[in-house]
Amino acid sequence: MIVPSSDVKPWPGLIETYRPYLPVTESTPVVTLLEGNTPLIPAPYISQQVGKGVKVFVKYDGLNPTGSFKDRGMTMAISKAKEDGAKAVICASTGNTSAAAAAYARRAGMRAFVIIPDGYVALGKLAQALLYGAEVIAIDGNFDDALTVVKQMAENYPVTLVNSVNPYRLEGQKTAAFEVVDVLGNAPDWLCIPVGNAGNISAYWMGFCQYHSLGKTSKLPKMMGFQAAGAAPFIGGQPVAKPETLATAIRIGNPANWDKAWGAKDASQGEFNAVTDEEILEAYRILAAHEGVFCEPASAASVAGLLKVKDQVPAESTIVCVLTGNGLKDPDCAIKHSDNQVKSGIKPELSQVAKVMGF
Amino acid sequence: MIVPSSDVKPWPGLIETYRPYLPVTESTPVVTLLEGNTPLIPAPYISQQVGKGVKVFVKYDGLNPTGSFKDRGMTMAISKAKEDGAKAVICASTGNTSAAAAAYARRAGMRAFVIIPDGYVALGKLAQALLYGAEVIAIDGNFDDALTVVKQMAENYPVTLVNSVNPYRLEGQKTAAFEVVDVLGNAPDWLCIPVGNAGNISAYWMGFCQYHSLGKTSKLPKMMGFQAAGAAPFIGGQPVAKPETLATAIRIGNPANWDKAWGAKDASQGEFNAVTDEEILEAYRILAAHEGVFCEPASAASVAGLLKVKDQVPAESTIVCVLTGNGLKDPDCAIKHSDNQVKSGIKPELSQVAKVMGF
Repeated sequence: MIVPSSDVKPWPGLIETYRPYLPVTESTPVVTLLEGNTPLIPAPYISQQVGKGVKVFVKYDGLNPTGSFKDRGMTMAISKAKEDGAKAVICASTGNTSAAAAAYARRAGMRAFVIIPDGYVALGKLAQALLYGAEVIAIDGNFDDALTVVKQMAENYPVTLVNSVNPYRLEGQKTAAFEVVDVLGNAPDWLCIPVGNAGNISAYWMGFCQYHSLGKTSKLPKMMGFQAAGAAPFIGGQPVAKPETLATAIRIGNPANWDKAWGAKDASQGEFNAVTDEEILEAYRILAAHEGVFCEPASAASVAGLLKVKDQVPAESTIVCVLTGNGLKDPDCAIKHSDNQVKSGIKPELSQVAKVMGF
Repeated sequence: MIVPSSDVKPWPGLIETYRPYLPVTESTPVVTLLEGNTPLIPAPYISQQVGKGVKVFVKYDGLNPTGSFKDRGMTMAISKAKEDGAKAVICASTGNTSAAAAAYARRAGMRAFVIIPDGYVALGKLAQALLYGAEVIAIDGNFDDALTVVKQMAENYPVTLVNSVNPYRLEGQKTAAFEVVDVLGNAPDWLCIPVGNAGNISAYWMGFCQYHSLGKTSKLPKMMGFQAAGAAPFIGGQPVAKPETLATAIRIGNPANWDKAWGAKDASQGEFNAVTDEEILEAYRILAAHEGVFCEPASAASVAGLLKVKDQVPAESTIVCVLTGNGLKDPDCAIKHSDNQVKSGIKPELSQVAKVMGF
């Protein structure tokens, strides 16, 4: 006789886990890599920096199957595309979206097309999508041209658009808010989150509101959105023509979810603020070297923002900072911006090595 | 009143989850990044390739916090080091071990020293460890010299050795076997696993045996270990002086856990086999482009091996292939070995793009 094992319950992926709260039916074929269920890691060093008995956690969505929060939206978008009989999907993306789209589409047996502006994207950024089997087409044009073409393709041919306008993407992404509440037992006081296209802040807010209406959380968090200073349309109040920041995942001048994000900010009495690339890098290094968490530069904007406005944090509050992507997505940034250097040319002798180590 | 949330139970990390089965006490300070609980993903395409109603799963340990199975051992090794009052840890490693050691040591407030042979390691491989705050020292010598020095340092100075000889490493790693059983409800018929230093195959076997003795599994799996053909001491029956394979994580000529691994193989009536780099790359591409799972090249040895010996697989059996690391650890391999290429120079017009896409 097998003794039933502890209390460990297998995680079946986010659609199965949150099925009652998602627009799926019994006939939806669930395409999953068991995404979601990412760790909410206590951040004792950052908590101490904030002080006042505040408890800070990081929601490390870089541990999704393709390395970013995009998997949450993509399991929904691809499952619904499959339900509709799609044989191919398409997106214009240079980063995390293309990797997620390719992985889920190929798993579902569909073709995955990625349209990019020629000469704009380093091959390293596309390696993951290519290996997943994406068919990447570089057009003579800019990113807007790429977006126009993918929309036209989706309108005129049997290919499903999985760019951020796909409504199922946010439905999947909102489950991150569910997970936060499921772990904490309630919503946090603040949610700090990087803002690029503004889909994720909108999705989190949808999730918190839905859980609130279901009585699963007694409160709603203040939504604190942080943009990179060189790509901060929400701070300037208008689109930025040429957004610039090393945090490429949030280098967006005209967010697709502008109104939704402002709605979330206003309703939650939250704020938008900008953080400089230097502040982002400092948070990036703190996360790695003190908390042991390696995230994409864009992800660190949430922690950079929290540290910037820490005087506003209520004492004893609980704060969640969203880390959207895995640091391994951008190894060049780690090489360029690590504080530490290799000490070389040391003789392989105990006394020499001990001396270098400071003993 | 808050409605208690679904059945989702937060994962507290592997030490808390499997505390009764690990050498920890109430006074052990648990240093955790909530490692473990990695997905056991069904692999329908590979199952079909094997045929005979066989069900294949991949245990995707690349979704651990630092991107490899090494985190399982390191949460144990660093927690025990902390319990002993250590202020610093040291290892000789060029890859996954150094990243895991640095992340956990820094999180515990310790210094993390990594000794490497000068000129041997590309900076990209060290970027992650450096960002985590590792102090990397490159010595004028080879890898054996590095190993000698770290042992001497640990014997003569207050630094704890966290190389594979640290006994707590395997204790932590064995929890992967627990997780497999907890999800499947029993042990699989076969466990296919890459073999380099042979610690992981030894740890899995420890885990299965312990769960078996506790009555949590009614059977034990056949342990099927796969080495890279250019680094296959277990096949030749003797150490390999100059191991060569693109699967760097298993490029080891003289495995530290030689006897333990052979014990596991013999007791389970398993086998060791070699797979060529070409077979590894083919499995690596299949995993990504058909299952949507991106792993390190070394990880793909388990699937390459299964496909190689598939005629021996019993009908209707359940097989788990271990994927030890995240593909994002080695982006160069993805760039070099993807089947797909970017199609460039396409005009941004619907008809042109549709034509390239085959419509």
